[in-house]
Amino acid sequence: MNQQLDTAINTIVTALRTVREQKPLVVNITNYVAMNNTANALLAMGASPIMAHSRQEMAELMSFASALVINIGTLDSQWIPRMLFAVEQANINNKPVVLDPVGCGASALRTATSRQIGHAANKLIIRGNASEIIALAGEKTQQKGVDAQDDSDAAVGAAHYLLETYQGNVVISGATDFVITPEGVFQLNNGHAMMPYVTGMGCSLSALTGAFAAIGEESGLAAVAILGVAGEIAAAQSNGPGSLQLNIVDALYQLDEKTLIQRIKLS
Amino acid sequence: MNQQLDTAINTIVTALRTVREQKPLVVNITNYVAMNNTANALLAMGASPIMAHSRQEMAELMSFASALVINIGTLDSQWIPRMLFAVEQANINNKPVVLDPVGCGASALRTATSRQIGHAANKLIIRGNASEIIALAGEKTQQKGVDAQDDSDAAVGAAHYLLETYQGNVVISGATDFVITPEGVFQLNNGHAMMPYVTGMGCSLSALTGAFAAIGEESGLAAVAILGVAGEIAAAQSNGPGSLQLNIVDALYQLDEKTLIQRIKLS
Amino acid sequence: MNQQLDTAINTIVTALRTVREQKPLVVNITNYVAMNNTANALLAMGASPIMAHSRQEMAELMSFASALVINIGTLDSQWIPRMLFAVEQANINNKPVVLDPVGCGASALRTATSRQIGHAANKLIIRGNASEIIALAGEKTQQKGVDAQDDSDAAVGAAHYLLETYQGNVVISGATDFVITPEGVFQLNNGHAMMPYVTGMGCSLSALTGAFAAIGEESGLAAVAILGVAGEIAAAQSNGPGSLQLNIVDALYQLDEKTLIQRIKLS
Repeated sequence: MNQQLDTAINTIVTALRTVREQKPLVVNITNYVAMNNTANALLAMGASPIMAHSRQEMAELMSFASALVINIGTLDSQWIPRMLFAVEQANINNKPVVLDPVGCGASALRTATSRQIGHAANKLIIRGNASEIIALAGEKTQQKGVDAQDDSDAAVGAAHYLLETYQGNVVISGATDFVITPEGVFQLNNGHAMMPYVTGMGCSLSALTGAFAAIGEESGLAAVAILGVAGEIAAAQSNGPGSLQLNIVDALYQLDEKTLIQRIKLS
Repeated sequence: MNQQLDTAINTIVTALRTVREQKPLVVNITNYVAMNNTANALLAMGASPIMAHSRQEMAELMSFASALVINIGTLDSQWIPRMLFAVEQANINNKPVVLDPVGCGASALRTATSRQIGHAANKLIIRGNASEIIALAGEKTQQKGVDAQDDSDAAVGAAHYLLETYQGNVVISGATDFVITPEGVFQLNNGHAMMPYVTGMGCSLSALTGAFAAIGEESGLAAVAILGVAGEIAAAQSNGPGSLQLNIVDALYQLDEKTLIQRIKLS
Repeated sequence: MNQQLDTAINTIVTALRTVREQKPLVVNITNYVAMNNTANALLAMGASPIMAHSRQEMAELMSFASALVINIGTLDSQWIPRMLFAVEQANINNKPVVLDPVGCGASALRTATSRQIGHAANKLIIRGNASEIIALAGEKTQQKGVDAQDDSDAAVGAAHYLLETYQGNVVISGATDFVITPEGVFQLNNGHAMMPYVTGMGCSLSALTGAFAAIGEESGLAAVAILGVAGEIAAAQSNGPGSLQLNIVDALYQLDEKTLIQRIKLS
C-alpha cells in the first residue's frame, strides 16, 4: 500500500500544478447560496469558473469547457431540465460531470433528481456527505446499513453500490473523507472541525473536484486533499467560520507543493 | 419593569443555549443577495439552515423543519406562489413564520406581497426597519404618523397596528431596536453604526429570529439582542463593512453567555 | 494634456464626495454570483443599492432611482425581457444605463443580448474587459484587430467603434484600464494583479460606474480610479483573494480624498 499512497500523493501534487498551468474552464450549475464562494475557490486554486445555466448557451459552453459541475442545493422544476441538458452536452463532448446531490434524502425531489443526473452522465464523479451518499444509494444500502458499525461504514458501503451502479467514482466528505474508486478506497484525515460551520464547503469541494476532473484527475482525491489541507491551514488563523471562509480562499491561492506533501494525511 | 427585564435577559440567554443544543432546522425562502450570509449566520449561531423554494419539496421540508423565514428581497412573480405555498405548509405543521418585508413601500408589489404573506401565516413574526413597518401598516398608520415625533414613534405605532391586525409580534430594527409583543414593548440599544453598511444585516436578523422561533422564543428579542451584541463586538475589530460582515459571523460563533449578559442594553 | 488630467482628477474627487452626500439609489439587475459583493461595494462607497428584477415593480423603481446597472453574468431567457423592460423604464425616466456584457463572445446568447441591451439604452455606458469589448464590437473590430499590436489596442479600437455605434462611453478594465469618451481616451494604471482572482471584481466596477452615472459623472472614470486605488490599498493588506475581496470593501469605505489624489495614476 505504501507505494500506492506515494503514487497517489504524487498524482495530487501534479494535478495541482497542472490546474494552475492549464487554468481549465469549469462550467458550474450550482446553488444560489454557494455561487460566490465556489467561483472564488476555483479562481484561487487556478481554475477558470463560469456559472451558467441557460439551455440557449450550454451547448456552446460545453464544447470548449473541460468539465461540468452540477449542484442541486437550491433546486426547482425550472433548473432540472437545464441540468439534464447540460449533462447531455457534457456527454456529447466526452467531458466529466461532478454531481453534488445536496440534501439528497431530505426530499423526494432531491433524491429523484440526483439519481436522474447520476444515470444521465457518462463520465461521473459523485461528491456528497455520508447521509447524501446513503440516501442516493437507497434501499439496497439501507439493508447493508444494518450491518454497518457507523455512518462511515454505511456510507462507504453505499458508495461501492453507487460506483457499480453509476460507473462513477465517489467522494464522501466528513471528519474523515473517503474516495471510492475501482482501484480501491482512499481515506483522508485533513480538514478542521470548524469547516462544517461555513456554508457551501461541500459545494466548493465539488467544484474543485470538477477542476481536477477537467485535467484528467477523475478520482476526486486531489480536491479532497487540497481543500482539506487549505482548510486546516486556514483554521489555524481564523477566529470563527466567518474568517475561515475567506482564509480558505487565501490558503488555496498560497498553497505550495512542499506544504501540501507534508500535510496530506492519506491512508 | 426591572424584574421583567431580568426575565427577558434570562429568556435570551436560555434561547441561545437551546438553539446551540437543538440545532433547529430553519427553512429560508430568501433573496439572492443575502443567502450566503444568512446561512452562515444561522450556522455560526448553532442552527441548521436550508435554503429551498421549490413547491415540489416544501411540504416534506416543512413537516420536519421547525420554522420558516420568508424574505422578499429579490421578489418576482414566480417566487410569490412558492412563498405562499410554504406558509401554507408551515400552518399545516403549526410552525412559526418570520416575514421580512424587504423594501415594503418601495413598490406596490412588495407592499401587497408582504401583506398577503402576513395575512396567510398563522404564527407570525414580522421583522423590518422603520420605513418597512410603517409601509406595511399602511394608511391607518400614516394618520397616526402625523402626531409622531420621529420615525421610531411612527414605527412603534405602526407595529402596534400590525400586532393587532396580523396577530404577530413585530421587530423594528434600527439604531434602537424595538420588539413589540402583546406583553409590552422592549427597546434594545446594542449594535453599531457601521452595520447598515453591510448588505443583508436585516436579513440575517430575520433568519436568527426564525431560529429562535423554532425553539419557542417567538418574541424576536433573543435575535435582536444577540445580533446586536455580536455586531458591536465585531465592529470593534473591523476596519470597514467588509471585515465587519465576517467578524459578525465569528462573533456569533464565539459568543458566550457571560459576555451576552454583560452587554445587553435592554429597556 | 496636463490641464485635462488635472480636471479629470478633480472630477473624480468631486464625484466621490457627491455620491457620499447624495447616496443615489442604483437599481441592479445583476448575476447571482456577484449580487452580495456588488451591493456591499455600493454601500461602502456611499451609494444605495437595490437588487431587483421583477417587471411588476421596475417602472416604479426606475421612477425614483438614479441609475440602472444591467449585468448578464448568469443570463437566461427569463431575465432577458426583464432587463429590456428595465432599460425601457430607464429611458422613459432619462436615467443612465450601465451595461456589463459578462462573457460576451463566449456564447451567441451573451453576444446578442449585450447588443440588444446596448441598442435599447438611450444613455449608455459599457464596462467590460478587453475580450468582451472586442466581441461586442464584432466583425468590424476583428478586422481592425488584425493590425492591433496587442489586446489593449484591439480593445480600444473596438471601444471607439462601440462609442460611435451605441453613442455610449466605454470602460475597458484590465491591468491597464481605458476610458473611452467623445472627449478622448483616458488610461489608468491603478489596481493590483490579484484582483482578477476575486470573482465579480468587474461586476463591482460596473455597479460603481452606475453610482457615478447616477450623480452625473457618466464617463466611468471615477469608478475605475476609485476601485483601482481601493484595490491596491487592499491588496497591500491581503494574503490572497479571499481577504482581498473584503479588504476592498473596507478600502472603499475608508478612502479619503487626499489618498485618492495621491494615488491616481491617470494618463
